[in-house]
Amino acid sequence: MQIEHRLQHLGLTLPPSPRLPTDVRLPFAFVRVAGDRAFISGHSAQDVDGRVVGPFGKVGADVTIDEAYTYARQTALSMLGSLSRKLGDLDRIDYWLRVFGMVNAAPGFTDLPAVINGFSDLILDVFGPEAGQHARSAVGMAELPWNIPVEIEAEVLIRL
Amino acid sequence: MQIEHRLQHLGLTLPPSPRLPTDVRLPFAFVRVAGDRAFISGHSAQDVDGRVVGPFGKVGADVTIDEAYTYARQTALSMLGSLSRKLGDLDRIDYWLRVFGMVNAAPGFTDLPAVINGFSDLILDVFGPEAGQHARSAVGMAELPWNIPVEIEAEVLIRL
Amino acid sequence: MQIEHRLQHLGLTLPPSPRLPTDVRLPFAFVRVAGDRAFISGHSAQDVDGRVVGPFGKVGADVTIDEAYTYARQTALSMLGSLSRKLGDLDRIDYWLRVFGMVNAAPGFTDLPAVINGFSDLILDVFGPEAGQHARSAVGMAELPWNIPVEIEAEVLIRL
Repeated sequence: MQIEHRLQHLGLTLPPSPRLPTDVRLPFAFVRVAGDRAFISGHSAQDVDGRVVGPFGKVGADVTIDEAYTYARQTALSMLGSLSRKLGDLDRIDYWLRVFGMVNAAPGFTDLPAVINGFSDLILDVFGPEAGQHARSAVGMAELPWNIPVEIEAEVLIRL
Repeated sequence: MQIEHRLQHLGLTLPPSPRLPTDVRLPFAFVRVAGDRAFISGHSAQDVDGRVVGPFGKVGADVTIDEAYTYARQTALSMLGSLSRKLGDLDRIDYWLRVFGMVNAAPGFTDLPAVINGFSDLILDVFGPEAGQHARSAVGMAELPWNIPVEIEAEVLIRL
Repeated sequence: MQIEHRLQHLGLTLPPSPRLPTDVRLPFAFVRVAGDRAFISGHSAQDVDGRVVGPFGKVGADVTIDEAYTYARQTALSMLGSLSRKLGDLDRIDYWLRVFGMVNAAPGFTDLPAVINGFSDLILDVFGPEAGQHARSAVGMAELPWNIPVEIEAEVLIRL
């Protein structure tokens, strides 16, 4: 339970299962496991009840870069929540592989890496530079579901 | 030939090889196989002759959400066509892994998951909840090739 | 050293490690290796000193399609530079798998495949049709970091 202890030490709490509005249907898995590979669906930040939270809107216009950094960091916690429920134990995560960071970018907002750093910094802080290291892209989308400012998907290697 | 039967039972027909306009050059594989992994290039809907079809334009403005749902569903059939030609037998698909659903989104159109559900619903219907389950993101792009309303790429696990 | 010879034969030179502006922090790996899999972060074109280069802006408005094709080609060289530094020898690349080509698209610019062909053509030219073949998507983003016209991420299979 090393990762759980690390989270506690950092004062971080994982949100519960996503609680969706009644008119939203998401017919897919938040985490899909095949052998030693776990694919993680696009995640957003969640509140303590599991609801998708804001601030909503375009980064660089409605949402500041600092708010977006924090949002990306909270998105990492949502993802760890999903991984924890799926894998039983976060210590089964051997290795982060790929992170695809999507920013709901206002026209002209190009400091996309600084936003997704919120995600990378948390993952590296929790998993360390060996397991937590990852390949990454940080890019600007035209729209994201429910007008969330950031959505991130990933792939990790797990222990069987 | 379980999947072929299932498609027949559902009254679904797969389109033939993509037939491209003469000025279009696509120097890549629609499906790339390495060991038990198959990577599937971005696909669109095709007509019975293999041509890329519309309705073209931005979802939420030129294309309705229902039309886009149907388009995503037809995109799944295009993908199954490519997989069938590459693998010989769709029963070789063991497990869907990752689906990346891209919507040509009009400004302010954020109901992207409802569009890509057309793809997920069909895959789950044809492959069942075990093999058909997948991780997914559904996001809004600024532009897509030929102004198609939806483009989807994926990865599946196959039997050797 | 087959690939190195091939590059020399084609008169191609790989740029050195990315040299970033002092205010930019990229806390991730340009290439992440796990077993026989190498995930490659989003890359751009670089100059002979490793700096991210332009032409900057939207393809179809600020940047022509020919310039963008060349940029995608140079992005392949940046990626080969990162792979060379990580793997020691580019001959360790067995098989290209997935290429995700992102174009900083001006409104209405949809000829995205023609841009990313610059990348695919170079990879196929250097690695040949067997190892160089790949699955691909070529799509239009709302914004890219530093307003680069093209960003490409990929995955390759490597020899252990």
